[in-house]
Amino acid sequence: MDKKLNIIVPRKTNFADWYTSIINAAELILYSSIKGEVIFRPNAWAIWNNIQRYLDLEFNKIGVKNVALPSFIKYSEFIKEKQHVDGFAPEIFLVTKRGNEILTDPYVVRPTSEVLFCYYFKKILTSYNDLPIKLNQWCNVFRAEKTTRPFLRTSEFYWQELHSIHATKSEASVMAKKELDIYYHLVNDVLLIPVIKGEKSIGERFAGAENTYTIEALMQDGQALQCATAHYLGTNFAQTYDISFTNKNNKLVRPYQTSAGLSTRIIGATIMSHSDDYGLVLPFGIAPIQIKIIELNNKQDNKLNNAVNSIKNELIKSGYRVSVDDSDKSFGYKINECELKGVPLSIIIGPRDLANNSFILYRRDLRQKIEYQLKDLAHVIHKSIKEYQTNLYDKASKNLNLRTIKVTDFNDFKKQLAQGKLILAPWGGDISDEKQLKELTGATPRCIISKISNDITKCFFTHKIAKYWVYFGRAY
Amino acid sequence: MDKKLNIIVPRKTNFADWYTSIINAAELILYSSIKGEVIFRPNAWAIWNNIQRYLDLEFNKIGVKNVALPSFIKYSEFIKEKQHVDGFAPEIFLVTKRGNEILTDPYVVRPTSEVLFCYYFKKILTSYNDLPIKLNQWCNVFRAEKTTRPFLRTSEFYWQELHSIHATKSEASVMAKKELDIYYHLVNDVLLIPVIKGEKSIGERFAGAENTYTIEALMQDGQALQCATAHYLGTNFAQTYDISFTNKNNKLVRPYQTSAGLSTRIIGATIMSHSDDYGLVLPFGIAPIQIKIIELNNKQDNKLNNAVNSIKNELIKSGYRVSVDDSDKSFGYKINECELKGVPLSIIIGPRDLANNSFILYRRDLRQKIEYQLKDLAHVIHKSIKEYQTNLYDKASKNLNLRTIKVTDFNDFKKQLAQGKLILAPWGGDISDEKQLKELTGATPRCIISKISNDITKCFFTHKIAKYWVYFGRAY
Repeated sequence: MDKKLNIIVPRKTNFADWYTSIINAAELILYSSIKGEVIFRPNAWAIWNNIQRYLDLEFNKIGVKNVALPSFIKYSEFIKEKQHVDGFAPEIFLVTKRGNEILTDPYVVRPTSEVLFCYYFKKILTSYNDLPIKLNQWCNVFRAEKTTRPFLRTSEFYWQELHSIHATKSEASVMAKKELDIYYHLVNDVLLIPVIKGEKSIGERFAGAENTYTIEALMQDGQALQCATAHYLGTNFAQTYDISFTNKNNKLVRPYQTSAGLSTRIIGATIMSHSDDYGLVLPFGIAPIQIKIIELNNKQDNKLNNAVNSIKNELIKSGYRVSVDDSDKSFGYKINECELKGVPLSIIIGPRDLANNSFILYRRDLRQKIEYQLKDLAHVIHKSIKEYQTNLYDKASKNLNLRTIKVTDFNDFKKQLAQGKLILAPWGGDISDEKQLKELTGATPRCIISKISNDITKCFFTHKIAKYWVYFGRAY
Repeated sequence: MDKKLNIIVPRKTNFADWYTSIINAAELILYSSIKGEVIFRPNAWAIWNNIQRYLDLEFNKIGVKNVALPSFIKYSEFIKEKQHVDGFAPEIFLVTKRGNEILTDPYVVRPTSEVLFCYYFKKILTSYNDLPIKLNQWCNVFRAEKTTRPFLRTSEFYWQELHSIHATKSEASVMAKKELDIYYHLVNDVLLIPVIKGEKSIGERFAGAENTYTIEALMQDGQALQCATAHYLGTNFAQTYDISFTNKNNKLVRPYQTSAGLSTRIIGATIMSHSDDYGLVLPFGIAPIQIKIIELNNKQDNKLNNAVNSIKNELIKSGYRVSVDDSDKSFGYKINECELKGVPLSIIIGPRDLANNSFILYRRDLRQKIEYQLKDLAHVIHKSIKEYQTNLYDKASKNLNLRTIKVTDFNDFKKQLAQGKLILAPWGGDISDEKQLKELTGATPRCIISKISNDITKCFFTHKIAKYWVYFGRAY
């Protein structure tokens, strides 16, 4: 454990400092010497690997296969899709030298890979028989950020990007929704972050998409965070990059595309949703160590060692990620480490417990110790995991419910926003209204959740006829 | 299947063209529009993922944890280690523009990550209590290559790089050997490529290493291929990047380091070791599809469908990667596809087989069909996998044995080399002799296998007293 770094700043004192202190104490991230470039330490990378495993299984179920595409895109190819380029231009890293050669057409280090997937699709697609093609890649992407923050905004980050290509508009549109559903279940059921599902406004849409589907969460400080998005791209990219196929009637036509991504940002969202003033709190499903066994004994005690070993083996056999701490550090140090690093459950056992055929279970969420009989171990663990998961989700839901409010008037809107609320309001504005609202209040439309079909409801901001119910908030 | 691309050039006609045709027909790699940048298609990436899973398990057993480090290194930091830089300077990609900012200290896109790991170690290391630290990362690395070839030499490729840091020289040295042992078992036992284990000569050592351990294989054309290397780095990098720790005697001292890597190049080695004039042949352990079930029926046949489903489920339950081809393509097409894509075993079953309670097993290595009873399925599969694996290894061993020869005279050396041999010869030369030998013959010292302690044996090339038995060959 890094000394000096294991003090958690209380959330109330300063939420941003709290976040940083959690990350330092849990040994998740270190900055490198380049602005915004970070090191994912073993604890952080293990969390990401656990998320990857879940998504790989789910993607596989809907026929998605993994590939790896190059990191570089020729500048001349990158700038073809006007809208797309406008979205990324100020943020790109440019390779201008290759060995001793000065590149006349430099390389953009990929900020996203639509251009690369389009190149690939164009190469392999000939007829409707080849469709659909559903591909995913786990990779690093690059955005030259000015202000950065671990997980939330860094110059290089990790994500998966799923890109699919279809014969029909409806099939592509359904696919984009399936992609979002997979993210919804990951974030809601595995990461235990209650989310709001909907569509992005024109101003918040992905550059080049016809529609962007999103799930949005609310952090403990009242700021919203976009967890993942799936995009229906229509034929925009197919037109720009000249992708076509012969359909059943032997006509050359454009295919329809989707793309979808979830990044290491979700780890930041998980931290900000569940952690407390004692350190990291992690959903059971993604914790690098799910159960820690703390052995209370500095001397050699064969009986105790054997008991600990058999508990460990039983838990590993049940599929849990288990670690034993039999070091000669103090009990206080050991428990503190479990708290800071977000170990969901700890089993504490010493010679006296063993003599009583009992053990102590320590739950990270409640910070409570309870004594159980060793013979009940399997049942106790099973039950405690369930309760732990429910408790995390309920706490986060309570935060979301308390901080969500419906508003129809701009003055009210400003008042509620100042109190860290996520605001549901009727909206009838266009993209310039979005910009104006953001300038005035700092809030953006996070998510359109439904259409308004009457002609009576007015937009809270423009007083035009409202078209949608939209969640607004300040966002990470 | 890409049409036009499914014709395999015979090995005898042109080995390089054969290799390319295997890769195209198996849909493994596509070139991108940037020189030497390639796309790993699903079949290739699945092979890599299977290799990753094996290595992750083995690394985990020796206490290695995965991390992710940045892709960029400041040029000023990169050039600190003189030897290291000389090894990589002509091959680097340089980022000179970050958003709108022209970088005064540009970024090297990592060709390897020693500098980054050193930065990390320096940040987290304080005392002997922190040691050893054993880290690994799976990542892409970049070398501006001029002539490229799928898997063997590309401008961007994938690898794992393991970096460890230790309190003592002996511990680090033992670690480097353990790393090589893991590679040895992967390549020899899983990829079924018989390899020669040894050390690199000074001229072939990793830039900055004190010793490089290597495993070398021989391809079907008689060219050698370095499969993986592990390096004992001594304190070279620790000195350059100023890494130190307080030892048990409270003195500030330098730690000892190792690094080790295996790249996607190994997929090229696997292809060139086992494939034949009918397409890709893959070791069972890494084949994306291990068993394909070919259903011989164009119409709806519920009984057959049910039988195929139950065979599939039984095989999946046994842990195999299984796929069913129930398309209405011809049998010839289906079998051809299995051959081209390297599916080790195929189960062929139609209504007539089912009526006889039998099935046909097709083995890719032998290209033979044998009929078996359905009740023996589990046993037949188990036995056939064993035989398949043994056959692949034996074939490759035969190639190695036939092409390996001991030589003590330079004229003999040249003759044998011209015949595509890997030559074991006594060596007493220095680095300039290595260079001269390469200029004259194209051969390099691949691997030192033992010391020569007498004063009688003469170097086959320099006629000085020989110090080592060394394998020489032309290499990929």
